Amino acid sequence: MRISKLSERAGLPVGTVKFYLRSGLLHAGRATSATQALYDETHLKRLRLIRALLEVGRLSLSDIHEILDAMDLPDVDTESRVTRVRAAIAASSGVSDSIDVTAAQDLLADLGWHVAATSPHLPALARALWAAESVGLEIDPDHFSAYAEAAALAAHSDRTAISETSAENLPTTVAATTVLLDQVLIALHRLAMENDPVDSRGVPRGARHLPGPRQPAASA
Amino acid sequence: MRISKLSERAGLPVGTVKFYLRSGLLHAGRATSATQALYDETHLKRLRLIRALLEVGRLSLSDIHEILDAMDLPDVDTESRVTRVRAAIAASSGVSDSIDVTAAQDLLADLGWHVAATSPHLPALARALWAAESVGLEIDPDHFSAYAEAAALAAHSDRTAISETSAENLPTTVAATTVLLDQVLIALHRLAMENDPVDSRGVPRGARHLPGPRQPAASA
Repeated sequence: MRISKLSERAGLPVGTVKFYLRSGLLHAGRATSATQALYDETHLKRLRLIRALLEVGRLSLSDIHEILDAMDLPDVDTESRVTRVRAAIAASSGVSDSIDVTAAQDLLADLGWHVAATSPHLPALARALWAAESVGLEIDPDHFSAYAEAAALAAHSDRTAISETSAENLPTTVAATTVLLDQVLIALHRLAMENDPVDSRGVPRGARHLPGPRQPAASA
Repeated sequence: MRISKLSERAGLPVGTVKFYLRSGLLHAGRATSATQALYDETHLKRLRLIRALLEVGRLSLSDIHEILDAMDLPDVDTESRVTRVRAAIAASSGVSDSIDVTAAQDLLADLGWHVAATSPHLPALARALWAAESVGLEIDPDHFSAYAEAAALAAHSDRTAISETSAENLPTTVAATTVLLDQVLIALHRLAMENDPVDSRGVPRGARHLPGPRQPAASA
């Protein structure tokens, strides 16, 4: 297809598609003349991923570039590509390695979780816990373990989805699962705060205490 | 305390603190001369919240300004302030109201959730679901309901924390709970993907199927 058709199907202005081509985010089309090229479904798929990571994942173009480069690594197996995609996503969270992760590691060890000490997500967890504490938000062990259980539940379900993915699509699925489903989880988390707990099927098995007082409605 | 001490305790350069004062993010200190002022714990607390929302929540300064303004609304009760804080946080996600939320509403209705049609988080959910679908990531009903259960579990635990908060601190706690704990949840979600499901206590009650194949380790 021509660039105009590609642009229309991706829901992006032609100028944006040209910018992605120039900056190397999008692979070149098949040249048919000095000024024209044809594009195929791989271009459309790539544009949709860029748009999703940008608009929903709120990643920067340079972070997206790193993730796409990891997906496209030549001469490596799928597992290595997936590992690099995960590392690029972790790096996009902008957390410095210099954060002390000991307390976060201890909390996970108490839950019986086995996570490599070098996991790029440990500094992210340490920083988020530190930030909550710095504004006076105490996260007690019950609260933390409810979060861990929630995360494990979501991750378990992701694994099923990922296990059904072909090797070819795996790097894309991992990037999409990690970045986009986080946004699904956040939106549901906020909606769950608005959901009347009494009537919902959403009351979790961790609900050993009575539900807290009903929250003020966020909208009428 | 002097501005130098305030800056040191908040872990921010003096220039940054002055910028926050000039831009109205931080309330003025008590002037002691034409060029000097004294600051107290309320200034420190505010700086820590700004820093946490900025560095961990990754919000823009203008979004943070909106949230702080909602927290500081004069002559309104706590409930109204909390409602405005939630609305400001929702607005910070930058989702347009023009998104069709019908499908997202139907999914929640199927779960028995009661959420106002005007909830600002419905467009965020609709957009995230659309983005996942646009890159070919099918979210089947089991996957969605596992996420909803995870979100309900986290929200239930948040309610307990919020119910123990004094009215005075409530707007801050709501802002911190929403923005910062989302980051805790995301970090845990990613760590849970790296956690070996076989050995973990994190295998959720939703685990009616066998765990999927073990994921490639993200780090050695």
